[in-house]
Amino acid sequence: MPDLTLCECFARDGLQHETEFVPTAQKVALIDRFARAGFARVEATSYSNPQVVPQFADASDVLGALPRVDGVYYKGTCANLRAVERALDDLEAGIGANEVSLLISASEAHSQRNLKQSRADQWKRIEAMAAAAQGRFRLIGTISVAFGCPFEGVVDETSVLADVERFASLGVHHVTLGDTIGVATQAGTQRLFGAMLNAFPDVDAIAHFHDTRGTGIVNYLAALEAGVRHFDVAFGGVGGHPAKVKYGGGVTGNVCTEDFVNVLETMGVATGIDLAAMMDASLVCEATLGRTLASRVARTGLNPMLARASTHTRVA
Amino acid sequence: MPDLTLCECFARDGLQHETEFVPTAQKVALIDRFARAGFARVEATSYSNPQVVPQFADASDVLGALPRVDGVYYKGTCANLRAVERALDDLEAGIGANEVSLLISASEAHSQRNLKQSRADQWKRIEAMAAAAQGRFRLIGTISVAFGCPFEGVVDETSVLADVERFASLGVHHVTLGDTIGVATQAGTQRLFGAMLNAFPDVDAIAHFHDTRGTGIVNYLAALEAGVRHFDVAFGGVGGHPAKVKYGGGVTGNVCTEDFVNVLETMGVATGIDLAAMMDASLVCEATLGRTLASRVARTGLNPMLARASTHTRVA
Repeated sequence: MPDLTLCECFARDGLQHETEFVPTAQKVALIDRFARAGFARVEATSYSNPQVVPQFADASDVLGALPRVDGVYYKGTCANLRAVERALDDLEAGIGANEVSLLISASEAHSQRNLKQSRADQWKRIEAMAAAAQGRFRLIGTISVAFGCPFEGVVDETSVLADVERFASLGVHHVTLGDTIGVATQAGTQRLFGAMLNAFPDVDAIAHFHDTRGTGIVNYLAALEAGVRHFDVAFGGVGGHPAKVKYGGGVTGNVCTEDFVNVLETMGVATGIDLAAMMDASLVCEATLGRTLASRVARTGLNPMLARASTHTRVA
Repeated sequence: MPDLTLCECFARDGLQHETEFVPTAQKVALIDRFARAGFARVEATSYSNPQVVPQFADASDVLGALPRVDGVYYKGTCANLRAVERALDDLEAGIGANEVSLLISASEAHSQRNLKQSRADQWKRIEAMAAAAQGRFRLIGTISVAFGCPFEGVVDETSVLADVERFASLGVHHVTLGDTIGVATQAGTQRLFGAMLNAFPDVDAIAHFHDTRGTGIVNYLAALEAGVRHFDVAFGGVGGHPAKVKYGGGVTGNVCTEDFVNVLETMGVATGIDLAAMMDASLVCEATLGRTLASRVARTGLNPMLARASTHTRVA
């Protein structure tokens, strides 16, 4: 049994801001590769408006063609009720995701600029989405800029905890705290996650940190120490915050899968990831985007002290 | 007073493997810029054989032209007795470094391949160098591959501690443990530095870790927690292990100055570095090498939550 659960975000968060369309068959092969390599959660696609995010115009096609690995959660990101309805249609058609996500900004200013909604209005949308999705999907609540906002600065931790409670009251028992702009500290990470885990023992905490300033792994290890067992990562560190948003946008994205898995396994933390399959996937991800990505382990190889050979085989 | 001492390694470790010669005047301006930005230690040059490392053919010219900031240690790297003699000549001429370094490999195999000497022979050389340099320079002992060797794997911690003791017996009271190939863990870092600080309270411990696999800052923070107060860094993460050496060579080098200072200051650890001057120096370092370097903070800017403005002024 792995000690924690990693969600591989390359195929959604990673591709979100890629301007070149990745062919559907390539997306399907990637997502399936991630699941077979041992990722228990995989971001599969986003039910975005194809006019706004053409990259995910093939959301239903991807899910329709995607083989499933038992026990793996495939996430469809949903920005609004229309997206949840599309996810439900796919579910009816037998091709659905089994996890959908709901997004709130921790700060009013970020909500206005990023979601074009007040927090109050966004919560109303989330309530409608949660009501429609409840019982059909595993629901993931995400609170962005939970550790600091590019517009408002410090974010009130009490308000973040109230958001967690509100998600829980809607039946959302997996809640993500996002360090969207890479400003969290070890101490702040441990304090906020510690308070969350303490106050809401029936809610699983997920960390989704951006490695904007090279603090991703530092803070993930702090979160692990605080009891967090779910972490979002992406091959090559792709994805993350939109370039158009001030402070740290678009430059460095998610925490690199390869680098985080390497450090965990070297520490003796079991990730459940087949390391050889991971390194193969790393190559495929770079080939998919046609450029060198940010992972250092992709360049240098796994820690040679890692005695453990590749033993994981999820799929017979 | 800063809480710790940073040594800026760009001008020596960083330039060591750069094939294009950086003009002497540029080196001098860089080193002086580092000292004025608040680095209490700066690697200035290496008394290498100019045939082998043409980059440092201008060692004495650099030191001759370099203004000095009070209290700053300028290091000249010395590979052998001939190098120490050159450093002494410069000292006689009134243009010397005030710190020299002496290097041992923690493993026999690494010593043979990297230094072309057995450990026993290298210790003999170090004894002669220390005898010649004693009382003239501050001496820095460095133990490379202290956390793991690319050829032998695990390195015996008792042997590393014996090396520290041997340096101390030669009057070397600053000893660096190097994670030369980026394989250290948080636990191993704390265990070895903890044992060193405990056993040799009169020796200052210096950490020189390579960020080969994205673990540099993670392990530096672990070392800080273990009581280490001296850290080697380089702008843009340049330098590090030679490309020709197996496992992680040449790809990612030292821990990025910008990223480490950012995380420390955000944590409330006083680095003594003028942050505005650091960001300027970061730009100049990238311009010097004519390419984008590895620092994330160089791309994204300092943590906007860092309230502290630039207040440091070492030089009136």
